[in-house]
Amino acid sequence: MRISDLSRRSGAPVATIKFYLREGLLPSGVPTGRNQAEYGDVHIRRLLLIRALTTIGQLDLSSVRLLLAAIVDEELPLPDLYEVASRAMFPVETGDGEQAPEVLLARCDVDKFIDDLNWVVQPDAPARRRLAEVLAALRRLGCECGMEFFAPYAEAAERLAMQELELVPLDGAAADRAAAIVRTVLLEVALGALRRMAQEHYVTERFGREVTTAGEARTGS
Amino acid sequence: MRISDLSRRSGAPVATIKFYLREGLLPSGVPTGRNQAEYGDVHIRRLLLIRALTTIGQLDLSSVRLLLAAIVDEELPLPDLYEVASRAMFPVETGDGEQAPEVLLARCDVDKFIDDLNWVVQPDAPARRRLAEVLAALRRLGCECGMEFFAPYAEAAERLAMQELELVPLDGAAADRAAAIVRTVLLEVALGALRRMAQEHYVTERFGREVTTAGEARTGS
Repeated sequence: MRISDLSRRSGAPVATIKFYLREGLLPSGVPTGRNQAEYGDVHIRRLLLIRALTTIGQLDLSSVRLLLAAIVDEELPLPDLYEVASRAMFPVETGDGEQAPEVLLARCDVDKFIDDLNWVVQPDAPARRRLAEVLAALRRLGCECGMEFFAPYAEAAERLAMQELELVPLDGAAADRAAAIVRTVLLEVALGALRRMAQEHYVTERFGREVTTAGEARTGS
Repeated sequence: MRISDLSRRSGAPVATIKFYLREGLLPSGVPTGRNQAEYGDVHIRRLLLIRALTTIGQLDLSSVRLLLAAIVDEELPLPDLYEVASRAMFPVETGDGEQAPEVLLARCDVDKFIDDLNWVVQPDAPARRRLAEVLAALRRLGCECGMEFFAPYAEAAERLAMQELELVPLDGAAADRAAAIVRTVLLEVALGALRRMAQEHYVTERFGREVTTAGEARTGS
């Protein structure tokens, strides 16, 4: 198919596709004439993958580039592929007070919490620091919650991680590896969306809602 | 305290504090001389709140401005406050194919799923569309999972939303409202961090890890 068909079928503008081609994120098509090339299913799939990671997953292009390279490198063990994904999903250094005593103290609590869960997590995993930053911020703002408050969060994370991993074949090729990464990134967004809706439901149930809305009309009594 | 103390105690640079003051995100201090003002605990708390929402929560300043206004407006019912937070956490329109037939189809499945959960969620809640986009993207990429796959995600979202709401007093004043919003935004990050670590743990347990790392050394046998 031509680049215009590729655009139509993927929903990505032609200019965006040309940009991905120039940047090497999308492999070149087979040249069929001056300024023309033929594209196939491999291009569609790659394009949908890039769009899902950038538009829904909000990953930046440098993270996507690293992820694509890790997906097609079938020599790279799956745990390392997940590590690339994990780092891509925590791209921004939060900066403020990363060496602050509160964060260091919270980090000790986080490390103990992860040890108590018997989770094997690398000492320099960015998620450890991110969790410590959250804990320190909650404490500084007087919203202190002890580590036991996080237990149901860890339990949920554990159950969902296990369910997702069951879908990944042991000898997965590039397509399976791409699917694993897509699920990791997109189901994070899905979980956030469901959390939003669950909150809306329970906060309305508990505190009522005075403004009449279309939503209320549907709930009836 | 002076602006320099405010900076030291909050970890925010003086230039950033001045920017927040100019933008009206932070109330002015009490003038004590030309170009000098005295700041108090209210400034510290507000500053920590802004920093937590922007650096850890990754919210943009226009969202933070809306949230701060909604927090201090104690006339605004709590469900509406949560709605402001929810919209702040889905700031970016994903654009691509939002009217695509796949997304519309997925949206029907999402609406039925939410109905089956008996959740009361407004028809125009951005989270509905976001979940439909995720579902459509998974299907287009051949990572199809039926809606039953999302059931444990919904269950986790439900349990965590209930736990968080139990911390919010029925007649909450501005400080309680701020705490509720801080938890909503920051615990989303905490949940993501825990999901990262759970994935690392289970992927390593299931697929092994060939590269020797500091993390491995800790796991022992």
